[in-house]
Amino acid sequence: MGRFVYAYFNAEFPNMTLNSDRFLADLHRLRQFGAAGVGKGVQRVAFSDADLAARDWLAERMAEIGLRPAFDAMGNLFGLSEEPGLLLGSHSDSQPEGGWLDGALGVISALEVVRAAREAGDRSLSLVSFQDEEGRYASLGGSRIWSGGQDLAEIDDNQATDGQRLRDARARLAPRPVEVIDAARFTGFLEMHIEQGPVLDQSGDKIGVVTAIVGFRELRATLTGQQNHAGTTPMALRRDAVQGFVAVAARLAEELKPLMDPATVFTIGHLSVAPNAASIVPGRASFSLQWRDADVQRLAAMEACIRRVLDDEASARGLELDVGPLESLEPVPMDDGLHALLKTAAEAVVPGQWRAMPSGAIHDASNVARRLPVAMLFVPSIGGISHDFAEDTDEADLVLGLQVLAKAVALKN
Amino acid sequence: MGRFVYAYFNAEFPNMTLNSDRFLADLHRLRQFGAAGVGKGVQRVAFSDADLAARDWLAERMAEIGLRPAFDAMGNLFGLSEEPGLLLGSHSDSQPEGGWLDGALGVISALEVVRAAREAGDRSLSLVSFQDEEGRYASLGGSRIWSGGQDLAEIDDNQATDGQRLRDARARLAPRPVEVIDAARFTGFLEMHIEQGPVLDQSGDKIGVVTAIVGFRELRATLTGQQNHAGTTPMALRRDAVQGFVAVAARLAEELKPLMDPATVFTIGHLSVAPNAASIVPGRASFSLQWRDADVQRLAAMEACIRRVLDDEASARGLELDVGPLESLEPVPMDDGLHALLKTAAEAVVPGQWRAMPSGAIHDASNVARRLPVAMLFVPSIGGISHDFAEDTDEADLVLGLQVLAKAVALKN
Repeated sequence: MGRFVYAYFNAEFPNMTLNSDRFLADLHRLRQFGAAGVGKGVQRVAFSDADLAARDWLAERMAEIGLRPAFDAMGNLFGLSEEPGLLLGSHSDSQPEGGWLDGALGVISALEVVRAAREAGDRSLSLVSFQDEEGRYASLGGSRIWSGGQDLAEIDDNQATDGQRLRDARARLAPRPVEVIDAARFTGFLEMHIEQGPVLDQSGDKIGVVTAIVGFRELRATLTGQQNHAGTTPMALRRDAVQGFVAVAARLAEELKPLMDPATVFTIGHLSVAPNAASIVPGRASFSLQWRDADVQRLAAMEACIRRVLDDEASARGLELDVGPLESLEPVPMDDGLHALLKTAAEAVVPGQWRAMPSGAIHDASNVARRLPVAMLFVPSIGGISHDFAEDTDEADLVLGLQVLAKAVALKN
Repeated sequence: MGRFVYAYFNAEFPNMTLNSDRFLADLHRLRQFGAAGVGKGVQRVAFSDADLAARDWLAERMAEIGLRPAFDAMGNLFGLSEEPGLLLGSHSDSQPEGGWLDGALGVISALEVVRAAREAGDRSLSLVSFQDEEGRYASLGGSRIWSGGQDLAEIDDNQATDGQRLRDARARLAPRPVEVIDAARFTGFLEMHIEQGPVLDQSGDKIGVVTAIVGFRELRATLTGQQNHAGTTPMALRRDAVQGFVAVAARLAEELKPLMDPATVFTIGHLSVAPNAASIVPGRASFSLQWRDADVQRLAAMEACIRRVLDDEASARGLELDVGPLESLEPVPMDDGLHALLKTAAEAVVPGQWRAMPSGAIHDASNVARRLPVAMLFVPSIGGISHDFAEDTDEADLVLGLQVLAKAVALKN
C-alpha cells in the first residue's frame, strides 16, 4: 500500500499521486457510521441518523479539498468542482443489513481520485453520493429523481416498511440547504462498485469492466385450482395448484435453457401457497418469474416461452391462470468512449487480469445514463456475497480498483 | 319424508319406526348452536360457548329418551343405556369455519336410531358425541383419550391457536360432573359421517360402506442451498432451493404413479421458501410430503421412493437435505361383522346404489377401534366440499343414511 503516481496525458497537470492508505482509512471511517452486526456489517439506510451523519462527514471532506458540497431535495450529496468535467461516485446509503462496500466503495474511491487530481491541479472532477439506492422508499430513488426518470411528487408519499413516508424522511434534511444540480456541468459519470456476484472471485480476475447493465423482466403468476381435503380427494379429481406450479417450473428449467447464454439468469425467488397446510390440496400458488440479460431480443424470446408454458400447463390441468403486468427495465449499454478508457486503464494496471462482463445488478449508473455518458467497473466480492454483513473484498483488490479508476480519469483528461 | 318401519330380526322387539322429520329437525336445531357464516355454516369449536350449549341440549335429549347423560374429563358426552350393546355416534364440535354435518350427522342420526329403538323396546343402544375431533387442542382428542391412545396429562398443556390451554378449556365443564366411561359396556361402534370427498357425489352412489380408514404418512423436508443476488449469480454457480424442490416434486409426480392405486393419495400441501423475494436466489425450501393408503406395504414402497428422490436430487444439486421424523397413523380395518351388516343394510335400502370404499379422512372410529369393533358408513358430500361453510348433503340422502344405519342396528340385534 502507499502512494501511486499517475502521469496525466494532459500536459497542464503533469501527474497525480494516489494515497491508498488515506483511501482505506476513509473507507473504514465511513463504515463507522452505522457499523453493526458481525464483521464489517453496516446499517445505514437512507435518511437514518447514521446516513445523514455520514453525508455531513462526506460534505466536510468535500469542502476540505475545495469542492462545494450541495444537497438536492432527494438528499443526493454532490461535491461540485469549479470547472466542468467528469462526475465520479455511487451511493452511501446501505441495505438494512448491509456490507461496508456496497456503494461506499464508489463514493470513497471517487473522493480519493478527486482529491489526488485536485492536488495535482485538476479542478474539473466532481463527486456524488446518491441517496436511497437501496430502495428504502424507492429503488435507486436518488439517481432516479435526479436524472428525471420520475417526478419527486410521484414517489413522495412512498412508505418505508416502517410506515414512514419519503416526504417526512426528506424533511430531516433541514436545516441543510437544498438546490437543483444541473447535469449539464458534467461530461460523464464513472461508478466503481463491488461486483456483488461470484464471477471475478471464481475466475481470479481483479477487475470487471462493465459492458452493459442488464435488462430486467418480471412477471407474477397465480395458478388457482380447487382447495380440498388431502385425504378424501382422489388424485384424478384434483386441481392442485402446487402440482401446476411444479409442472410449469420443471418445463421452464428445460425449455428456457436453449434460449439463455452463460450470463442470462432466470429466477423463481418468491412463491406463496394457499392455504399452505399439509393436509389440504393447495388451491392457489403465486410466484415470481424474473429474468435478466443485456439483449432485449433474448429477453423477449424468454418471455414468449414463459407465457406459453404457463398457458399450456394451466389449461392442461384445469387451473385458472392470472398473470400480472410485465415489469421491465431496459438494458443500459455503457458509453463506448468511457468503456474503452476503463479497458485501457485496466490493462495498464492489471494486464491480463481483468474481464469485460455485464452487470447483473442495477446501479445508479442505470439512471444517470439518461443524462450523461456512463461507464462502470467492478472489483471482486469475496464468495460473491453482498447485501449481507459478511460482504467483503481484499483490501489489495480495493486499491487496484482505485488505481484503474484514477488511470481512466487520467487518460480522459 | 316421514316414518319408516324396520322389523327387528330379534323377536323380542318386533319393529322400530324411524321418524325422518324429527331427525332433520334435530339436525337443524343442533346447527343453531354456533350457526354462522353463509348458508348452513357453523362455528362450534371444542369447549366454546356454542359447543358446551350444544352438549347440554344433547344431554337433555338423551335424558328425555331415558339414557343417562354422562360427561368424561375430556368433555366427551355419552348417553348410556341400561343394557350392554352398540355405541353409536360421532362428534358435535366443528372446524373454526365448518359445515353443519361434519360430526353432527353422526350424532343426530345416532340419536334418532337410539330413540326409535327405545320406542320399540330396545334398551341396549348407547350414544356418544366425542369432543375436539377437529383438533382445536389435539387432533381427535376426545376419542384419543377415551380409547387410551394417550394419557390426558400428556396433552393437557396443549394450546389452541388463541393460546388457551386444554386444561383451562376443560375447566369450563364445571359444574357438570365428570366420570370415567368404561368401554366394556359397549359391544361395538358404528359411525355415520359425510364423505367429505367427491367420490359418491361423482359416482351417484347414495351410500359408502367404509372398508378401512386409510393409513397416513407424512415427512417434512428442507432443502438448503445458497441464498444469492438474482441478478449477479450466474445459473451455473447457483444452489437454488426452489429449483431443487421443483426437481423433487416433478420426479415424484412421475415415479410415484406406478406405486399408487386409484384410492392412494399423495399431497404437497405446505411449502415455504426463504427469503422469498423475487430478486433473491432462494436459499431454503421446506415442504410437506403426505401420502395415504389402506395398504401398509404400499405406504412403505412410496416412502422408499420419496426418500430416494429427495437424496438423489439434493446430492445432484449440492443442496443440504434435512428430513424430519416420519409421522404415521396405521390403517384401521373395519370389523368384518359390522362391515358386513352395513353392506347388507345398504343393499336393502339402496340396492345397487352403494359402494365399498376406503375413508381417506381420519375419524373418531380410528381411535375407538383400539377398544371396540368399529364400522363406518358415508353419505355423499355435494361437490365433495367439507371443512367449509358450503358443506352440504341433499336431505333425502341424509335420510337414506339414517335408514341404512338403523337397518344395520336392526340386523345386529
